[in-house]
Amino acid sequence: MSAVPTSVGRAATRGSYAWKKTLPTLKPRSNAAPTTMQGIDPSHNQPMGSWSNEQIGASVKENVMLTWAPSKMKNNLPIITHGEGVYLWDSNGKKYLDWTSQAVCTNGGHTVSENIKSAVAEQLDRTPFVYGGMAMCEVRARLSNIISSVLPEGLTGCAFPSSGSEANEAAITMARRYTGKTKIINWYRSYHGGTTNSLEATGDFRRWYIQPPPGFVKAHNPNPYFFEFAGATEEEKTEMSLLMLEEQILYEGADHVACIMLESIPGAAGVLTLPEGYMQGVRALCDKYGILLHLDEVMVGFGRTGNMWGFQHYDGVVPDIVTSAKGLSSSITPISMVAVSDKMMEFFEENPMGWGSTFQAHPVAMAAAYANIKEMLSNDVIGHVQEMAPIFEAHMKECASSHPSIKQYRAAGLFGALDIVSPDGTQPHHFNAPRTEATAAYAKAFNEVGLIGLFRPPVIHIAPPLIINEAEIKEGFEKQHQALDVLDKALGY
Amino acid sequence: MSAVPTSVGRAATRGSYAWKKTLPTLKPRSNAAPTTMQGIDPSHNQPMGSWSNEQIGASVKENVMLTWAPSKMKNNLPIITHGEGVYLWDSNGKKYLDWTSQAVCTNGGHTVSENIKSAVAEQLDRTPFVYGGMAMCEVRARLSNIISSVLPEGLTGCAFPSSGSEANEAAITMARRYTGKTKIINWYRSYHGGTTNSLEATGDFRRWYIQPPPGFVKAHNPNPYFFEFAGATEEEKTEMSLLMLEEQILYEGADHVACIMLESIPGAAGVLTLPEGYMQGVRALCDKYGILLHLDEVMVGFGRTGNMWGFQHYDGVVPDIVTSAKGLSSSITPISMVAVSDKMMEFFEENPMGWGSTFQAHPVAMAAAYANIKEMLSNDVIGHVQEMAPIFEAHMKECASSHPSIKQYRAAGLFGALDIVSPDGTQPHHFNAPRTEATAAYAKAFNEVGLIGLFRPPVIHIAPPLIINEAEIKEGFEKQHQALDVLDKALGY
Repeated sequence: MSAVPTSVGRAATRGSYAWKKTLPTLKPRSNAAPTTMQGIDPSHNQPMGSWSNEQIGASVKENVMLTWAPSKMKNNLPIITHGEGVYLWDSNGKKYLDWTSQAVCTNGGHTVSENIKSAVAEQLDRTPFVYGGMAMCEVRARLSNIISSVLPEGLTGCAFPSSGSEANEAAITMARRYTGKTKIINWYRSYHGGTTNSLEATGDFRRWYIQPPPGFVKAHNPNPYFFEFAGATEEEKTEMSLLMLEEQILYEGADHVACIMLESIPGAAGVLTLPEGYMQGVRALCDKYGILLHLDEVMVGFGRTGNMWGFQHYDGVVPDIVTSAKGLSSSITPISMVAVSDKMMEFFEENPMGWGSTFQAHPVAMAAAYANIKEMLSNDVIGHVQEMAPIFEAHMKECASSHPSIKQYRAAGLFGALDIVSPDGTQPHHFNAPRTEATAAYAKAFNEVGLIGLFRPPVIHIAPPLIINEAEIKEGFEKQHQALDVLDKALGY
Repeated sequence: MSAVPTSVGRAATRGSYAWKKTLPTLKPRSNAAPTTMQGIDPSHNQPMGSWSNEQIGASVKENVMLTWAPSKMKNNLPIITHGEGVYLWDSNGKKYLDWTSQAVCTNGGHTVSENIKSAVAEQLDRTPFVYGGMAMCEVRARLSNIISSVLPEGLTGCAFPSSGSEANEAAITMARRYTGKTKIINWYRSYHGGTTNSLEATGDFRRWYIQPPPGFVKAHNPNPYFFEFAGATEEEKTEMSLLMLEEQILYEGADHVACIMLESIPGAAGVLTLPEGYMQGVRALCDKYGILLHLDEVMVGFGRTGNMWGFQHYDGVVPDIVTSAKGLSSSITPISMVAVSDKMMEFFEENPMGWGSTFQAHPVAMAAAYANIKEMLSNDVIGHVQEMAPIFEAHMKECASSHPSIKQYRAAGLFGALDIVSPDGTQPHHFNAPRTEATAAYAKAFNEVGLIGLFRPPVIHIAPPLIINEAEIKEGFEKQHQALDVLDKALGY
């Protein structure tokens, strides 16, 4: 029996540090950079507005990255120099009607009122920033209070992240922590944001960019992409959708499902207005199985559809969690919101939310939102949207009936979508495909006639600023018809 | 052989809709809410600054939620009414020296210069918002260019999310998409943000709040929480840390590791200054194994440590990805940044980034950041930090030597931390534990003597606005000593 070696070998190794040899050596690079204006291009001292198109273009080419699109597309985008009301102008003097409120978010248009400007300026003078976990400030109390006031009774607690994604992150984490359950049910035809949880909640192709965290379950929308569900009437279709959802809840395990998280009206997916009775059924299923209902109002909140909230189209339905952004500040500052039921709020009085951010409850962002909300209420913007809605819908209908390339329209308030159809009855362009010749020709014509907006074929979005008047709606649709003429032709009609 | 039944049974079912019976019915609730100022408390018409403490307190109690802390703590926070320079005042007239720049972010202090205010006002007049995927604007070209100018050569492409979390989300997704690999190595003692990917990258306890997405691997910092690594010299400790990291890379599989993602100097973890040579070793390991190096500069970027970037403390080290926020705008507006190497930028010219947000490249947020950066460069703020650094460090040293409750200090520029120690040589308070009697007594004293700031025991953060002068530093440390006297006593020294 041979002895097991003990300390001898170890002592020798300890002295020689043989392991040092495996460390690689660095090929150093200079990491120097200027710390004063010396070494910075002196053109940065010129006043804003003075850079030439060439200079802007060069910097865009060198230094700017896009996000959802390949970055090289940046070189073809117009350089916007100023805006007024529903219009924007580019650096060549071309005027555009903002036909989708940018990303369905500049609800108040492109002229910031004196009230809002002075609210921002005053907050910059008062307290530009305090960290929300360290101190309170009046604007936070006021904004939280007014948001709670424009929500149905029972939705009380508010936090103010900086983006729709972050609001949804906070909401998802709260739903899980409050219920102690992990699964979240979302639709395929949905978009809930770009951060991991929000993107995994999302159903559309942008979800494929990330590592999926576990626990998100996708359900079919009642508005399928390819076909209509079986059923002779809308009521039958609704019932079938709800039965599919209930079956999914049962098989996922009701005790594992924290939340059903849906856009009140899916926006990026194509303004998917819901069949009658569907959301009431979802709320009833949530109540039956002890599941929270989170309605994502990032796009439709604050008047887009002619109600303050999209869910107010569904009589009797109150969600447990509401998230919104965009219209909250008319996108003048980056700010979003999450509001929860009084029961959930009570739980989080004693427990951390589980989400946070330095810029949560940012005073300047809140000041802009607060002034914006008050202006929206004072000017009865929602009343105006209700007035414009039938005019808008009549124009949408006319697009669908007069252009063979348009299969159908959907509209709610000033929130509309047209579905493009090929002569053979199919979608001419799948959502994640590169531009086809026909969709590229349409996109070019759309800008040329003087419109600017989102275009995610096979859907054409139409969602102008909520302050648009009848004449401007008419003007926009005249231009829309011109662009659709190009599409009709390009698709071979 | 009996016949298989075919259409008879199905036809009968189709007619009777037996499945309808399983649908639950809704117990409706009113979802009405006001859409005009009628129905809103008229106190919202009073000018900002006019609400009483009681009214603010009531709304805070009813409607405000905190994030990382249980919400009920909101009722004890001071209501800040205004600020000037490094000082803040609360609604009782009490004056505080902002001893950690709020969340290490109000680097320029609490007085916004005329230059920055007019940049914000002008952008609100010009183009308050354009969607970054739809249009360019001059401020985006300028900010992208100047950020690239203050980065080492080879870091060129920029995007501007709204928070540090979002910048890290973008960076993580880019690292994975660019390399085609999935794993990301992060330290335990780290914080990278509150959204899911960023929170899973985080090592500290906030990571426990979320569902972990796969692919994040935690490595030991070279600065362990409980003990020092073996090794007689700093060089030996560095080598041991790097060998542990290399072993981890080999066992995780270098071909599966997209990125090593580290804070250049971990901030929330306690200003963990790195041992000499460590980061050079990490960069060399990345180069050896074809792994990207992402340095998170959310807290230390833009001058906090006396260099523009924290990584400039590590000669020869250039990361492939840099994220930052906070100091970018001095937190006057919510904005963050991600910059990548020219090679990565080239890849994303042809491929979508895989992350996006409506508020990416927000013009007003960018205008504030651009004006802030120019002011920082024009005023040579970094030169000022370098001048203040030895004074600051002398005071930090004095805290550690004159108070038995302080085991040691770390300082870099105006970024400092004190480690609290119990008489028995242990940490008196673990990071996720509720306040003890001693830490609560200290926190109370800290505010009473007229300081406001982050306190995450067992670490005391000291990180005043970068514009602080020598007299204010002296004043702050005098107050700090008073609070530490209370701590010494409370801990039983």
